[in-house]
Amino acid sequence: MNVVYRNIRRAERSVVDGFGPLGVATVHEAQGRTGLMAPTIRPIYPGARIVGTAVTASVAPCDNWMIHVAVEQCQAGDVLVVAPTSYSDAGYFGELLACSLQSRGVRGLVIDAGARDIRDLKEIGFPVWSKAVFAQGTVKETVGSVNVPVVCAGALVRPGDVIVADDDGVCVVPRRDAASVLAASQAREAKEAKVRERLKAGELGLDIYDMREKLASRGLVYRDQPPED
Amino acid sequence: MNVVYRNIRRAERSVVDGFGPLGVATVHEAQGRTGLMAPTIRPIYPGARIVGTAVTASVAPCDNWMIHVAVEQCQAGDVLVVAPTSYSDAGYFGELLACSLQSRGVRGLVIDAGARDIRDLKEIGFPVWSKAVFAQGTVKETVGSVNVPVVCAGALVRPGDVIVADDDGVCVVPRRDAASVLAASQAREAKEAKVRERLKAGELGLDIYDMREKLASRGLVYRDQPPED
Amino acid sequence: MNVVYRNIRRAERSVVDGFGPLGVATVHEAQGRTGLMAPTIRPIYPGARIVGTAVTASVAPCDNWMIHVAVEQCQAGDVLVVAPTSYSDAGYFGELLACSLQSRGVRGLVIDAGARDIRDLKEIGFPVWSKAVFAQGTVKETVGSVNVPVVCAGALVRPGDVIVADDDGVCVVPRRDAASVLAASQAREAKEAKVRERLKAGELGLDIYDMREKLASRGLVYRDQPPED
Amino acid sequence: MNVVYRNIRRAERSVVDGFGPLGVATVHEAQGRTGLMAPTIRPIYPGARIVGTAVTASVAPCDNWMIHVAVEQCQAGDVLVVAPTSYSDAGYFGELLACSLQSRGVRGLVIDAGARDIRDLKEIGFPVWSKAVFAQGTVKETVGSVNVPVVCAGALVRPGDVIVADDDGVCVVPRRDAASVLAASQAREAKEAKVRERLKAGELGLDIYDMREKLASRGLVYRDQPPED
Amino acid sequence: MNVVYRNIRRAERSVVDGFGPLGVATVHEAQGRTGLMAPTIRPIYPGARIVGTAVTASVAPCDNWMIHVAVEQCQAGDVLVVAPTSYSDAGYFGELLACSLQSRGVRGLVIDAGARDIRDLKEIGFPVWSKAVFAQGTVKETVGSVNVPVVCAGALVRPGDVIVADDDGVCVVPRRDAASVLAASQAREAKEAKVRERLKAGELGLDIYDMREKLASRGLVYRDQPPED
Amino acid sequence: MNVVYRNIRRAERSVVDGFGPLGVATVHEAQGRTGLMAPTIRPIYPGARIVGTAVTASVAPCDNWMIHVAVEQCQAGDVLVVAPTSYSDAGYFGELLACSLQSRGVRGLVIDAGARDIRDLKEIGFPVWSKAVFAQGTVKETVGSVNVPVVCAGALVRPGDVIVADDDGVCVVPRRDAASVLAASQAREAKEAKVRERLKAGELGLDIYDMREKLASRGLVYRDQPPED
Repeated sequence: MNVVYRNIRRAERSVVDGFGPLGVATVHEAQGRTGLMAPTIRPIYPGARIVGTAVTASVAPCDNWMIHVAVEQCQAGDVLVVAPTSYSDAGYFGELLACSLQSRGVRGLVIDAGARDIRDLKEIGFPVWSKAVFAQGTVKETVGSVNVPVVCAGALVRPGDVIVADDDGVCVVPRRDAASVLAASQAREAKEAKVRERLKAGELGLDIYDMREKLASRGLVYRDQPPED
Repeated sequence: MNVVYRNIRRAERSVVDGFGPLGVATVHEAQGRTGLMAPTIRPIYPGARIVGTAVTASVAPCDNWMIHVAVEQCQAGDVLVVAPTSYSDAGYFGELLACSLQSRGVRGLVIDAGARDIRDLKEIGFPVWSKAVFAQGTVKETVGSVNVPVVCAGALVRPGDVIVADDDGVCVVPRRDAASVLAASQAREAKEAKVRERLKAGELGLDIYDMREKLASRGLVYRDQPPED
Repeated sequence: MNVVYRNIRRAERSVVDGFGPLGVATVHEAQGRTGLMAPTIRPIYPGARIVGTAVTASVAPCDNWMIHVAVEQCQAGDVLVVAPTSYSDAGYFGELLACSLQSRGVRGLVIDAGARDIRDLKEIGFPVWSKAVFAQGTVKETVGSVNVPVVCAGALVRPGDVIVADDDGVCVVPRRDAASVLAASQAREAKEAKVRERLKAGELGLDIYDMREKLASRGLVYRDQPPED
Repeated sequence: MNVVYRNIRRAERSVVDGFGPLGVATVHEAQGRTGLMAPTIRPIYPGARIVGTAVTASVAPCDNWMIHVAVEQCQAGDVLVVAPTSYSDAGYFGELLACSLQSRGVRGLVIDAGARDIRDLKEIGFPVWSKAVFAQGTVKETVGSVNVPVVCAGALVRPGDVIVADDDGVCVVPRRDAASVLAASQAREAKEAKVRERLKAGELGLDIYDMREKLASRGLVYRDQPPED
Repeated sequence: MNVVYRNIRRAERSVVDGFGPLGVATVHEAQGRTGLMAPTIRPIYPGARIVGTAVTASVAPCDNWMIHVAVEQCQAGDVLVVAPTSYSDAGYFGELLACSLQSRGVRGLVIDAGARDIRDLKEIGFPVWSKAVFAQGTVKETVGSVNVPVVCAGALVRPGDVIVADDDGVCVVPRRDAASVLAASQAREAKEAKVRERLKAGELGLDIYDMREKLASRGLVYRDQPPED
Repeated sequence: MNVVYRNIRRAERSVVDGFGPLGVATVHEAQGRTGLMAPTIRPIYPGARIVGTAVTASVAPCDNWMIHVAVEQCQAGDVLVVAPTSYSDAGYFGELLACSLQSRGVRGLVIDAGARDIRDLKEIGFPVWSKAVFAQGTVKETVGSVNVPVVCAGALVRPGDVIVADDDGVCVVPRRDAASVLAASQAREAKEAKVRERLKAGELGLDIYDMREKLASRGLVYRDQPPED
């Protein structure tokens, strides 16, 4: 029942890296507002942004044994995604494990639990998105699984899926949809660039998106503020 | 029932800008410890501080349509205050809307919900105080109201009120009380400057505020620590 | 019943300062994963790290009177630890009190409640670990105690204990155990330095810690990912 | 600044009591989905339902002095509404105060804080809606105000407003709107009675509310489940 | 993109009903501690327990339109499982919808959001497991999907899966595993019956489960309490 | 480091049982508002009330092994108090362990984590105060300690202390103070009985407690409500 899957299929590298300049909000919108992790998952320091392919670990609460197992399954360009089977804010992950992942070219960690050694992680530039910062240690007693589908902060993640993470949070793009979501994201970005120029020039969204009639038809009325009450 | 009020009365500009150098804590104290939003409202990046006049929007949960409507009612020196009618941490607001508000001279946003495009907002220097950072998108289906009184994070905000926001949070000063609260805030600031010098010089608050007798009368006693237990 | 204990026994200065280069996670591990405050306690700005001896204050909810009393009991090298007797996120502590503590050589504050004047505290370099940032003021009506044992964010703190605080949170080392915990922490640090080099060189934790056999005995199996589903 | 208003105007008794058989959900819908307190406010025991006129108390955190003051302003048919000026889950209210209110004909308490003596309150049949059950005591040190407008669990309550409370929570109806909201609530109730019969008979909401066309126009499609994956 | 799947495959009725006398804790253990929803999901009244086959609805936040659509896909023995695409505690579900589901033989509702009309739902005996009780209404503006896989309170639910719910919470058994999990659950139940008798007779778990040696080998020592400190 | 203390000193039985008719709120007040656990600890079913002597267990997160160890140290009249060393809401405790404790005359359980088999526990009449109801299982991998001092929901509990628990929550009375706190509690109860009669007769707390002058001196003023605004 506790299995480590090796040799997973990963989303194609060129597609994955195409997400590099795109933000989480854009990608999430472009795939129909799906795939977003809950807002409880936050970066441990501001400014980081990564894209990569998911290696997943299903771990016991307050037990980080399987992270050591998962490291071996990671390769350059991956992002490790860790989901406990029960609520935990323990500090599963610190600077030593980060050194290990960094030496393999892993781009970051997403964990629905706690991280620690925050100062060191920032110093060595290994970005982490976590639910908590907590120095509380973990044990190495219970086995779990690697590269099985996991639910992480409310989002379903399968091994090989694309992970996009920045200051807004973390979005998952299913491996098979990666190319089409990339195209949709780029199209959205291009469209927004044009709207941005018009907004900066002082045009109103009400006019750009042609909303006035629809608003009126839904019953919105305009009045001057009543005299001093 | 869904109304946009135009031409609201705003607190006087010179008074509003007088709050510029004052902190949220000072203003909140000076108006009798009222007007403060709940501590769930936090700046999306540190260091920002603004003062301005409130334009209010009452919006449906997970629906940012009325923000587009509210933009048109904003003018230079305003702060947009957005309150959903039911709990929401969705990402109502991102960089495009910020460009639109910035082009009108709006100084910032306060929202009892989520914001997104955090990295971009910081880059263009548009400060936001929000309950969450969340890339989850919103719809444009349900109308609400603009420039009605709203309860935002537990504080009552009326259009035209003064908004003071910094790293400590957000404080609302009623439009009609603005001048008197400004005077009281400045007086408090002046008084604190004197106390600060004495404290830095090593005097104790116990003596400066003459607390020793009152403490004793309330039953406080001093003892040496008992021998090693 | 409300007492201020003077002349408390403090952990020895040379031992306390020995914790300076060590992180909270290391110290917490070295004393058997005990003494850690809950992850609700966070630094008000990133990057600070302090060690010091605890002066404790047990305070009424939303009442900061006893902090003024506690200041007098503080000396250079202390850290003030404040625990309300009931839940409070009020802003007990701001820049004026920080000036007072700083003039006495106090290294920081840990409080299971709120702090305010965040911007100023960062500017003057007085670090605070708190449960909330909140400008809401407090009163001075109810006496409490100073230098009694307190439970702060789930951790028992006695006067004179060692406080270690950094970006990971806050750890308490009992005064009597300080020397032995310091030795254990330094030993752990030395050991980790060696492991770090091996991990950076690409060795796996699985091998360094000799985990493979134990994992297999607990039932972990390896498989190739099944053909495309 | 701290005032007790006597002789408040109350919603008309016959109108208030007309809300008796109506549920919170119905009334909230009938007044345009406004006036509802946050779902953090829950009854301390199931099954109670009351309507009454609000006497309001703005109280200091963890200080129940003003409840004693408010009792005197209560009369038969009132509901006492208590809102602390800062977060508190302390036990402001217990069986003794309930005896006092009951002797005056007060119908219940709504408090955005804690209550205690739950077992006794249930026994004597005095219903309370609160944020917490907590035995933690309060002090009597700081004055507040009675019969001023308060924000309680996110809802604005003015003295004399109608309070409707049941297992679903608490809804506030502004005094001036009471008659029209009562009429709208009764109309809604009558309409729902008819729909209820049709639904019980097996008709679908899809047909009763004529939704199929609108759903299709918004892009909803029907498919048979794909063959076994 | 928004689809309603009809004619889903359901777990076999006789297997489903076999779970009837088993508790959530037993089933969850018997399938390897998987499938449990988060403890935020609670029954709206105590004492209910149901088993059934899942019909799933993915709904917009604060929008219950798709519940009306889902009703039509439900048949006798089903349990409706509703998951918003973003956080919501709005009251999606009340007594009218319950009447509709009850007329079709549906056994209950599981929703990662709010329910209302609690008193009525208890009276008509329609059990609901929800994240909140909240009278706040919803809109009917945005379409979603029915009978797609959903993540509900952290658990993955596919249409046709077995839902077991009681006072402990909600557990999901994948359709294909239903028969084997039932057998494992019944075996566990039988085994526990024997242990229960021994424990009632005063035997210790330490002896029944033969733990003493393993405890000693992990370093547990026994001592008499030290003399009075 | 992991120790089980046998033969602990317990508070005297006659004193412990003297607390039987007293409520948690009364006892907490009588010992100076100390000893109360946080309001996150709630009874799993209403109406239970117990008093007893504490046997304490310090347990690993999501690991209930030490509860089996603790059972052996329990005797008639005890209450088992369980505190995880890190946050956990896992279901450490169910009906089988309750049978074991009940066979030894143990009166109940207090746990700063989750319990399960709620329906069964209610049926056999074994009361539990817990932070969560959650069927999630635990492991038996890590040893802890029995009858060491623990912090449970913010309260310090030493073995042999008196535990008082009812619908209001849980209060701890230190063993050595038990007799004096009992006397103070009974005195308080007697005094309240007299006040209760006067309140029922319609006298006001304002007069019974002689508050009017103090209120006026603190600046409270009375006014009639202003004319219709």
